[in-house]
Amino acid sequence: MIPEKIDLAHAADRSEWSERFVQVRNTTDALATDLLPEDQTIQSMPDVSPTKWHRAHVTWFFETFLLVPHLRAYRVFAPEFGYLFNSYYQAVGPRHPRPQRGLLSRPSVAEIAAYRNHVTEAMLRLIDEAGEEDWQPLAPLLELGINHEEQHQELIFMDIKHVFSVNPLRPAYARARVAPRAAGHPAMLGWKDFAGGIAEIGHHGCRFAFDNETPRHKVWLEPYRLASRLVTCGEYLAFIEDGGYRRPELWLSDGWAAVEAQGWEAPLYWEREGEGEWSVFTLTGLRPLDLEEPVCHASYYEADAYARWAGKRLPTEAEWERAAAGAKVSAEQGMLHPRPAPSQQVGLSQMIGDVWQWTASSYSPYPGFRAPAGAIGEYNGKFMSGQMVLRGGAVVTPPGHSRVSYRNFFPPMARWAFSGIRLAEDM
Amino acid sequence: MIPEKIDLAHAADRSEWSERFVQVRNTTDALATDLLPEDQTIQSMPDVSPTKWHRAHVTWFFETFLLVPHLRAYRVFAPEFGYLFNSYYQAVGPRHPRPQRGLLSRPSVAEIAAYRNHVTEAMLRLIDEAGEEDWQPLAPLLELGINHEEQHQELIFMDIKHVFSVNPLRPAYARARVAPRAAGHPAMLGWKDFAGGIAEIGHHGCRFAFDNETPRHKVWLEPYRLASRLVTCGEYLAFIEDGGYRRPELWLSDGWAAVEAQGWEAPLYWEREGEGEWSVFTLTGLRPLDLEEPVCHASYYEADAYARWAGKRLPTEAEWERAAAGAKVSAEQGMLHPRPAPSQQVGLSQMIGDVWQWTASSYSPYPGFRAPAGAIGEYNGKFMSGQMVLRGGAVVTPPGHSRVSYRNFFPPMARWAFSGIRLAEDM
Amino acid sequence: MIPEKIDLAHAADRSEWSERFVQVRNTTDALATDLLPEDQTIQSMPDVSPTKWHRAHVTWFFETFLLVPHLRAYRVFAPEFGYLFNSYYQAVGPRHPRPQRGLLSRPSVAEIAAYRNHVTEAMLRLIDEAGEEDWQPLAPLLELGINHEEQHQELIFMDIKHVFSVNPLRPAYARARVAPRAAGHPAMLGWKDFAGGIAEIGHHGCRFAFDNETPRHKVWLEPYRLASRLVTCGEYLAFIEDGGYRRPELWLSDGWAAVEAQGWEAPLYWEREGEGEWSVFTLTGLRPLDLEEPVCHASYYEADAYARWAGKRLPTEAEWERAAAGAKVSAEQGMLHPRPAPSQQVGLSQMIGDVWQWTASSYSPYPGFRAPAGAIGEYNGKFMSGQMVLRGGAVVTPPGHSRVSYRNFFPPMARWAFSGIRLAEDM
Amino acid sequence: MIPEKIDLAHAADRSEWSERFVQVRNTTDALATDLLPEDQTIQSMPDVSPTKWHRAHVTWFFETFLLVPHLRAYRVFAPEFGYLFNSYYQAVGPRHPRPQRGLLSRPSVAEIAAYRNHVTEAMLRLIDEAGEEDWQPLAPLLELGINHEEQHQELIFMDIKHVFSVNPLRPAYARARVAPRAAGHPAMLGWKDFAGGIAEIGHHGCRFAFDNETPRHKVWLEPYRLASRLVTCGEYLAFIEDGGYRRPELWLSDGWAAVEAQGWEAPLYWEREGEGEWSVFTLTGLRPLDLEEPVCHASYYEADAYARWAGKRLPTEAEWERAAAGAKVSAEQGMLHPRPAPSQQVGLSQMIGDVWQWTASSYSPYPGFRAPAGAIGEYNGKFMSGQMVLRGGAVVTPPGHSRVSYRNFFPPMARWAFSGIRLAEDM
Repeated sequence: MIPEKIDLAHAADRSEWSERFVQVRNTTDALATDLLPEDQTIQSMPDVSPTKWHRAHVTWFFETFLLVPHLRAYRVFAPEFGYLFNSYYQAVGPRHPRPQRGLLSRPSVAEIAAYRNHVTEAMLRLIDEAGEEDWQPLAPLLELGINHEEQHQELIFMDIKHVFSVNPLRPAYARARVAPRAAGHPAMLGWKDFAGGIAEIGHHGCRFAFDNETPRHKVWLEPYRLASRLVTCGEYLAFIEDGGYRRPELWLSDGWAAVEAQGWEAPLYWEREGEGEWSVFTLTGLRPLDLEEPVCHASYYEADAYARWAGKRLPTEAEWERAAAGAKVSAEQGMLHPRPAPSQQVGLSQMIGDVWQWTASSYSPYPGFRAPAGAIGEYNGKFMSGQMVLRGGAVVTPPGHSRVSYRNFFPPMARWAFSGIRLAEDM
Repeated sequence: MIPEKIDLAHAADRSEWSERFVQVRNTTDALATDLLPEDQTIQSMPDVSPTKWHRAHVTWFFETFLLVPHLRAYRVFAPEFGYLFNSYYQAVGPRHPRPQRGLLSRPSVAEIAAYRNHVTEAMLRLIDEAGEEDWQPLAPLLELGINHEEQHQELIFMDIKHVFSVNPLRPAYARARVAPRAAGHPAMLGWKDFAGGIAEIGHHGCRFAFDNETPRHKVWLEPYRLASRLVTCGEYLAFIEDGGYRRPELWLSDGWAAVEAQGWEAPLYWEREGEGEWSVFTLTGLRPLDLEEPVCHASYYEADAYARWAGKRLPTEAEWERAAAGAKVSAEQGMLHPRPAPSQQVGLSQMIGDVWQWTASSYSPYPGFRAPAGAIGEYNGKFMSGQMVLRGGAVVTPPGHSRVSYRNFFPPMARWAFSGIRLAEDM
Repeated sequence: MIPEKIDLAHAADRSEWSERFVQVRNTTDALATDLLPEDQTIQSMPDVSPTKWHRAHVTWFFETFLLVPHLRAYRVFAPEFGYLFNSYYQAVGPRHPRPQRGLLSRPSVAEIAAYRNHVTEAMLRLIDEAGEEDWQPLAPLLELGINHEEQHQELIFMDIKHVFSVNPLRPAYARARVAPRAAGHPAMLGWKDFAGGIAEIGHHGCRFAFDNETPRHKVWLEPYRLASRLVTCGEYLAFIEDGGYRRPELWLSDGWAAVEAQGWEAPLYWEREGEGEWSVFTLTGLRPLDLEEPVCHASYYEADAYARWAGKRLPTEAEWERAAAGAKVSAEQGMLHPRPAPSQQVGLSQMIGDVWQWTASSYSPYPGFRAPAGAIGEYNGKFMSGQMVLRGGAVVTPPGHSRVSYRNFFPPMARWAFSGIRLAEDM
Repeated sequence: MIPEKIDLAHAADRSEWSERFVQVRNTTDALATDLLPEDQTIQSMPDVSPTKWHRAHVTWFFETFLLVPHLRAYRVFAPEFGYLFNSYYQAVGPRHPRPQRGLLSRPSVAEIAAYRNHVTEAMLRLIDEAGEEDWQPLAPLLELGINHEEQHQELIFMDIKHVFSVNPLRPAYARARVAPRAAGHPAMLGWKDFAGGIAEIGHHGCRFAFDNETPRHKVWLEPYRLASRLVTCGEYLAFIEDGGYRRPELWLSDGWAAVEAQGWEAPLYWEREGEGEWSVFTLTGLRPLDLEEPVCHASYYEADAYARWAGKRLPTEAEWERAAAGAKVSAEQGMLHPRPAPSQQVGLSQMIGDVWQWTASSYSPYPGFRAPAGAIGEYNGKFMSGQMVLRGGAVVTPPGHSRVSYRNFFPPMARWAFSGIRLAEDM
């Protein structure tokens, strides 16, 4: 049972910060409990990082941006880790090349565990001892660091899934929890209408958000409709069986080039076992495809082609965010794979916490966006090119990251995120 | 002297169509008059096509989409040309791979001239003889074909410039016309303000436009300012001399990767002759850099980095289009390289016809956009991924293509178009 | 009718040298007579050079190594040609990158013809006017230059064949000369025995040879047999039909990697028209495969795999050279494709002038080999790594180059030379 | 202290075979004793295999070629290991792609240890229980398997050295044993003369040899000289300081291409610390370069260029083998890096067991060579293309493999073997 997360925006005292900090650190370590040192060392493609690298990098983030500038007499654990575990912060110095993260047997998993302990303890001292005037600039950085580590928790799931998938032995990350399937009939696909006009999107309020969710701003929307639930594996299979991967007229030009170059015939992790028989590789191993589950691990190109085949389109991020106002996390927590939509629901289901939903919006700065000064300014802004926005969060997304203004982003060819499809159409 | 173009939207009779058609055909051939067969055969990079290929491809377009379906008893000039000169129309059949267009010595330039004559004559027969009910669907296709050939006229300029640039002999496409430099002082950089609110962009009216310029639609704009003229080479040189190409903090992440991978140190066609001395390769050969000319052949990444260095940003396409309402073509016609802004001008100068201006907008469908059915639907829509919009037209853009709703698009790394920079900022 | 070549080793006076020189220059130009400027400009793969490049390069060789150092007041035709037409002589200065030879429309074919005339005239002056003491060092360089240009005559054939082969129009270099097929039955495959012992190989005598044919030296040979004729297309087809290209056990490891990476299913220029129907692309165009012709355009890997399949092996170059002593050019001169072996012949046929025959010998220096000093030393020696020796000459090899000591060499993967197979076996 | 190896050619009974078998198995495991699971999982380049892969592959060899066909009721440990641990035996079935050996976290190091035990026990049973008529074909396979595992012991050293070298932390494989440097002056470079004539090379006698060392055969040799010791780091440094890596005239054409493409400036593992200061990475970590040690980790191209610079050449394998007759292992056993030559020695020193010595001979079959039938025939023969022969063995070569007829082979660009240089010259 995942405990309720502490709301730092209304934290009464430092102990609540410490508690929240320790919670996120422990959660990260818990993800690696059943992984061998060998598992934590592999980088199966350049996009993937080894588990132990994630565990060290989030630690480096606290050390670099909080401990070194703010904790008196802090002793850096190992100076060379600054080179190894800097991800992409040019302002902080040179980095070990990303595609070579899997070439490092050392520091070992044990050494990284020691590094984590060293930094966690120092951080607790910092939280406890910082004077009030120090605390004011520290608190937002700490909150950022906590959210940053939570983002990497999702990456650990995504990456270890890919690592195991390229192994012919197909290891499972966890034992399957047999979740009771909802009784009753599969959910019908319905549509919900939205009138046109001016809407507002973007983060507001005092709770945490990343810089790319701001500023809140107006947009003009034409009337539109949104599908009541996600596209299912069964619906997607009909696209495949109708020659979806062999008909260039359904695809963006770059998407068709990807189909041909990569030899795509289905979403990532689908495996054809025989005529019409499909399995899917999950964090609990290989198992038969469930036709009522939402399709997952589709690229933007596939989402777009599916929508064209279906005579629909993908929603823009503004259309999605406006419709999501007030939506609740729908998936049971702690699941490692998305589940079918509830068969009976009024309005929109599966908006938050099932699979990330590709939007038709490229990842651009909101009007008036300004990246923060310094290295922290590299967190989001410099990636605003060549990527598409996804919304809604997935079953492996930490609670709280599934807020309606959260903007996830991946290149249109990427498939290793837990990404699926919700349809839209003009009215 | 380029004659006034006939306005087909108000053409009184078929002879006006014939005249316009012949005009565009002759203009294309005139571009190749001084090129040797060897020149017309070269493909200097995959993006570039040989001149003779362009001349054949636009001809194939008329043959495939007009003559074959509509001209009774039309004899296809050479069936195998359908394979060689189809650019990207999947619906029409397989194509010769684009990167191999430069491997074809045959058909020769002379054979392609014969092909052009064959098709021109048949087209004139079709225009003349088509019955009225046939004419209704034909006319829009003919207008599209004419505009298509005009687009390739600009590509011929872009491509032959690149072809000559990779030759150590640095041949010139044309002899330089010494145009009198405007008297007086260089134009100061001013700013024009625009209030926020709802604006409308997109094509309207009865004149020709491409599908991607429609439908006209509303957008919400925050208040903004636009620079009164384009960024000059002198201003861009200050960016270079301030270490612009060595400072990752100024660049988008993908842009910095391009700088490193391509070894960029200046815009395309700039050549450093010595300490602080720069030359630029033009269609009239290599000559010293004129600091007051607009910078040209910059990628989107460079435009974006320059704007960040200058503390400004690029305009969105909506901001640009709204500001451009009523703008006139500013460049003297027939120039092969952009010229300095007039030193005294009220309002915005160099909006139309100098260099294409990168916008901050990715190339996406307008709300409600529908690609036409059939192969013609592949014209624009399938490229709406991974590219950025440019606006305004360049000195090598055929007259008429520089309309305010025209959406040009290139990948953010592309530099061989005549692309420059206009700055914007929030108010 | 190709005239008898003058034997420079016994030339009585300078006029014989002039005559031989003019003859080779005219022969080169004659090869390009029917080629368009477009044809002469194409580089269809990095190994291939454009015809006009060959014509300029051999001219540069005379200019650089004879005219500049030896002809008083010689005016270099165009200084920048030194950069464009140097092939690989590091000692002479930097070069235009080989894979970019096809990006040069200029100098045009006409300019290169003027370059050739300029150099030919200056050379004739040099031959005529050189004082006797100057002549001594000049004569060997002149003879080398003449032989060098002849090597490029063969390369022109090889390269234009490849250029036309990648063109879907499949142009023919020349009209087919219908040569009367020898009457009678196909030649049976026989074997000729050779006793073991010490043999001598390498060039001797006063006639011209390249440095890599020297010094003549002893080798120890075990007893062996040589096949009486070349492997035919029909025999090779049996290998294909027996799964030759699908059975890794028949191939060297690198050869099998090439089969898989390149998708080889037959020799270069073979095209499968249907079930069991094969055509072959030749310099006279595409035509049905003649099963009695020798197989041609096989790589070393294919030759080796065929030999293994046949239970035989390839001969070493020493075995071949010893057996070839006294052999005569067998092919009718001026052919552009190899012909079947004569049906009735005693001893070995097709040893000289049909197709180059792969040997089992890697291209290494002979014991005691010394490359000449200076740039000329780069002619052969620096390529003695990673290549295999071929012997015997082909139908497109200039007369005289088919001498028994001549060592041709190509990488084991190369297929665009006129290369075939002769079998050997241990006794 | 490494015990004397049992000479199986004269083994009195099965227990000697068992003892020798167990010895080689234990030696392999001992090499991994101090390696973490993380260390044993890394593949730092496609040529390198993870330690745990080596440990499993040699085990698979015994299982596949001995246990499965010969041990009644043998239970295969894990059927899927046949796919994972087959190196290159096409006849045995498909394999996991070599460049992806580093993507496998499972089977874990612990599972591979269990696999080793399972196979070792079964093998001991087989050795013990095989009937005499079974034993006859088994014994040679067992001896091959033992020698095969010994070859992989050397590969484990080579590969883990490379794995650690790409890690910025530069881990050491072992603690340095401070070996006493020989007293006295460095060894002078002398020359030993050999008369020309017929020599015999290749394996003879009843002891084990690989197929590629046979058959013993005659060769003709011209008179030659061999250097009395290996080229030292100090001598090689003079080559570097004389511009060796910047002078194309010293290099084979392919070698110079490698210098430029790879940016070579010194042998692998040399690191320039400052002006004229060099360190070298060894299995005991990074330490200052010892100028009297033999140069190591040079490619063939570098060995050849050095020899040309020195006015000498590399010996052929026949020259080397004839000179090595009767040579003894010179290095102290158990060293992990080569040591300087003894200062006083008559004749040739460092012939056996210091560093592998590149020869001028490409790796080709000996006259009359026949690969064995079946999968075992793939052991050596199919690699006889594109590689050069090395002779003499290195400090990391298992005792016994340093016999004078042993033919090691690597591509001319390879540098991660312990490969050095001995000079030769014509007399």
